[in-house]
Amino acid sequence: MPAAMLTRGAGQSLAEQLSARFAERIRTRLLAPGARLPSVRACALQYGVSPHTVVAAYDQLQGQGLVDVRRQRGFFVRDWAAAQSARAATPERPTVAADASSLMRGMFHRRSAKPQPGMGVLPPDWLETPFLSAALRRIAGGPLLQELSLQYGDPAGDVALRRSLAQRLSGLHVPAAPERILTTVGATHALDIVSRALLRAGDAVMVEEPGWAIEFARLERLGMRLLPVPRRADGPDLEVIERYCATEPALRPKLLFSVSVLHNPTGYCLAPGNAHRLLQLAARHDFRIVEDGTYGHLAPEQATRLCALDGLQRTIYVGGFAKILAPNWRVGFLAAGEALFARLLETKLLTTLTTPALFERALAVCIDQGQLRRHGEQLRDRLDAARTRAARLALAAGCRFLSEPAGMFGWLDTGVATDALTQRLLDEDYLIAPGSLFYARRPPTTFMRINFATSQDAAFWKTFARVRDGR
Amino acid sequence: MPAAMLTRGAGQSLAEQLSARFAERIRTRLLAPGARLPSVRACALQYGVSPHTVVAAYDQLQGQGLVDVRRQRGFFVRDWAAAQSARAATPERPTVAADASSLMRGMFHRRSAKPQPGMGVLPPDWLETPFLSAALRRIAGGPLLQELSLQYGDPAGDVALRRSLAQRLSGLHVPAAPERILTTVGATHALDIVSRALLRAGDAVMVEEPGWAIEFARLERLGMRLLPVPRRADGPDLEVIERYCATEPALRPKLLFSVSVLHNPTGYCLAPGNAHRLLQLAARHDFRIVEDGTYGHLAPEQATRLCALDGLQRTIYVGGFAKILAPNWRVGFLAAGEALFARLLETKLLTTLTTPALFERALAVCIDQGQLRRHGEQLRDRLDAARTRAARLALAAGCRFLSEPAGMFGWLDTGVATDALTQRLLDEDYLIAPGSLFYARRPPTTFMRINFATSQDAAFWKTFARVRDGR
Repeated sequence: MPAAMLTRGAGQSLAEQLSARFAERIRTRLLAPGARLPSVRACALQYGVSPHTVVAAYDQLQGQGLVDVRRQRGFFVRDWAAAQSARAATPERPTVAADASSLMRGMFHRRSAKPQPGMGVLPPDWLETPFLSAALRRIAGGPLLQELSLQYGDPAGDVALRRSLAQRLSGLHVPAAPERILTTVGATHALDIVSRALLRAGDAVMVEEPGWAIEFARLERLGMRLLPVPRRADGPDLEVIERYCATEPALRPKLLFSVSVLHNPTGYCLAPGNAHRLLQLAARHDFRIVEDGTYGHLAPEQATRLCALDGLQRTIYVGGFAKILAPNWRVGFLAAGEALFARLLETKLLTTLTTPALFERALAVCIDQGQLRRHGEQLRDRLDAARTRAARLALAAGCRFLSEPAGMFGWLDTGVATDALTQRLLDEDYLIAPGSLFYARRPPTTFMRINFATSQDAAFWKTFARVRDGR
Repeated sequence: MPAAMLTRGAGQSLAEQLSARFAERIRTRLLAPGARLPSVRACALQYGVSPHTVVAAYDQLQGQGLVDVRRQRGFFVRDWAAAQSARAATPERPTVAADASSLMRGMFHRRSAKPQPGMGVLPPDWLETPFLSAALRRIAGGPLLQELSLQYGDPAGDVALRRSLAQRLSGLHVPAAPERILTTVGATHALDIVSRALLRAGDAVMVEEPGWAIEFARLERLGMRLLPVPRRADGPDLEVIERYCATEPALRPKLLFSVSVLHNPTGYCLAPGNAHRLLQLAARHDFRIVEDGTYGHLAPEQATRLCALDGLQRTIYVGGFAKILAPNWRVGFLAAGEALFARLLETKLLTTLTTPALFERALAVCIDQGQLRRHGEQLRDRLDAARTRAARLALAAGCRFLSEPAGMFGWLDTGVATDALTQRLLDEDYLIAPGSLFYARRPPTTFMRINFATSQDAAFWKTFARVRDGR
């Protein structure tokens, strides 16, 4: 029997329990605006209650303004954005943004003590280090606290961190002087700054597919035309890129976003030959490449990076620390060539003015003392072990890997539709990341991304198999 | 003799000294892209050197790629954005953004030990409090540090701060439950989120004039059509608003941004009658109002606020802490009605995911213990004294107040063109804020904004008068 069944004879009626469950899911966006609730019959079967109870529950949701009834079609989560679209700007396809943010919100909530395979970050206990706290406490305990708090600070970001990053990037053969580095509110903000500074509404932008939902959603919100480029094991599909470029100048892509190292969700790393040819294509067809190095800390330093080959001529490097240290500190950065830098800095000013220097300085200390590098190595080792275990469990549960397991995420075929599976597993307090999230058009798929660190639990795979098989 | 003359017989030639001075100003954007350098003759006169020396200095700048020569017209700061406009998106009027950010960058640099009348924040020693450091240290010293660092955190922001803000807003008669409050990276980020969530490129937006340059620049970058509304002593000019609304639906303004309390730069506070009529206009013509409460901490609590009258129906409230506590912590917030909230939260997710909870929690402690309120009262008293003194000096220097001195800023007529005056005072290591910055179209004016806290120095006013009179 599913763990999260309704309880007869509890303080609340079954209808109340059921409506409360849906209400919570709607509020946290795990049921997105516009999504259809299960049919009364299906819901009754699923929860082992009478259709009458389901109707009563749905009526309550309607009374709370959370769902709308559409004649002959059923109950739908109310879509506030669409309801107001006559008035204000509506994103062209609001459900994408909503669904992306539903996954994100799922990631933020710790729903239960269970490890969550859908999470995009490592578990807090993996990120715990004595050195980060020590660095922050040392700074907060001294006179630097006032100096780094009471003025706006350097618009480009704390100079100590920019120096440390310059050195680190130089170790990756990316030539970025401190004055070509801009700190940001996480890598997300860096990607947002680049999009806003270099693109305008209507521009064509290439994104890797599968790829990261938040990136698709942001670009669509900014009014860009997304051109999906299949991501292969050796890098983005160059033939597809060439085809996109073989069009009239006004329609040609201006930018490619690429996660070259440990790509999300496939774990693929760019091959040197593909990198070289990609840069040649970029030169020939005059587009720029944003290299998202978010997962770089978890990869060997010698991994091929576009920015190392090209020296930040046509490339812009983006990175952050959420995957290995402190997700909530929201420290990210970008490195860019001289011609673009002023425009990127200006965009940062217009969006957040400056960024908190206190966290930036503490991170600089950790980088300079080599602690970050050692911590990254330890995480890699721990991830290797987790990957072996999780992959074995996934295979035993009948899943098939779509790409060779590597890095933080596994990219699987479950054999069943994962959008529906996601809703059913939520009833069991498990959050998974369905494959549709990783495609710009969100087609239904049987795929799923797992976080190796949070998918080592045999109990999850047992529940997964039971729910998948409808048992 | 001006303080910053060139030094004969120093290690550098006069031409080198001169070119270095211009280079620094160009790099820090105090000379904006596209700006024209002084004529050779005028520059030679100003710095007491031969025209030959000036030509040599300008040649060096050209060699460094910092300026361009335009035949028959002189030397101009190279405009990278314009040079690249064929390639990537160009803001429609890049010089506005550049000039806004030049002032901002000026504000960030502490150019010298001298107090800077152009600054937009209070001096660091005014903001120094024992309680803020204590709150941060207490949190950083305990187990909360890990909890508030190692997970992404609540997308809406730290719940403790949202509860404290809800209570504070309720004291201002603004009904905002914690779940209608969103924390942001400073008020700037809040304004950016609102613009992006509620507007799309081409929309008409009303802004108060004079008003804040960064706001104009951001909206223009987002592709909005700015409709300036003259700011009167009692509020925005309602007749002008009515005129803007009397047009075909597609061209009507969607939003008005208003600093209702202690308006920047005039110090005006909204009168109750204007507030009431403004909200009636908004309802009749179906536009929303973003009430920017940035300076609210420095005003009496009983000041008239649009959000208090309207209960966040057509209004959105924006606030922050940069003006009274810790500019670099970048903590701001917005409060909005239910219908808009989900969309605003989603926009936050797409721009920065979450915000640093550590600072938010520390601020919550300060609000809850009443320390913030008491600190605000002390700042008000101190500002009253500074205002009296600075106003006396300004009047003695021959300036005329354009609005009755109030709050943090004075809005003056100097009687001479302040764009040129700004450049000349930079030679004396003084940064002033010229009037043109406060108008969307940046017309030349004789106006100037002063920060009362940093304009109490008789030495500044003496230099000001000397430079203004060309002595």
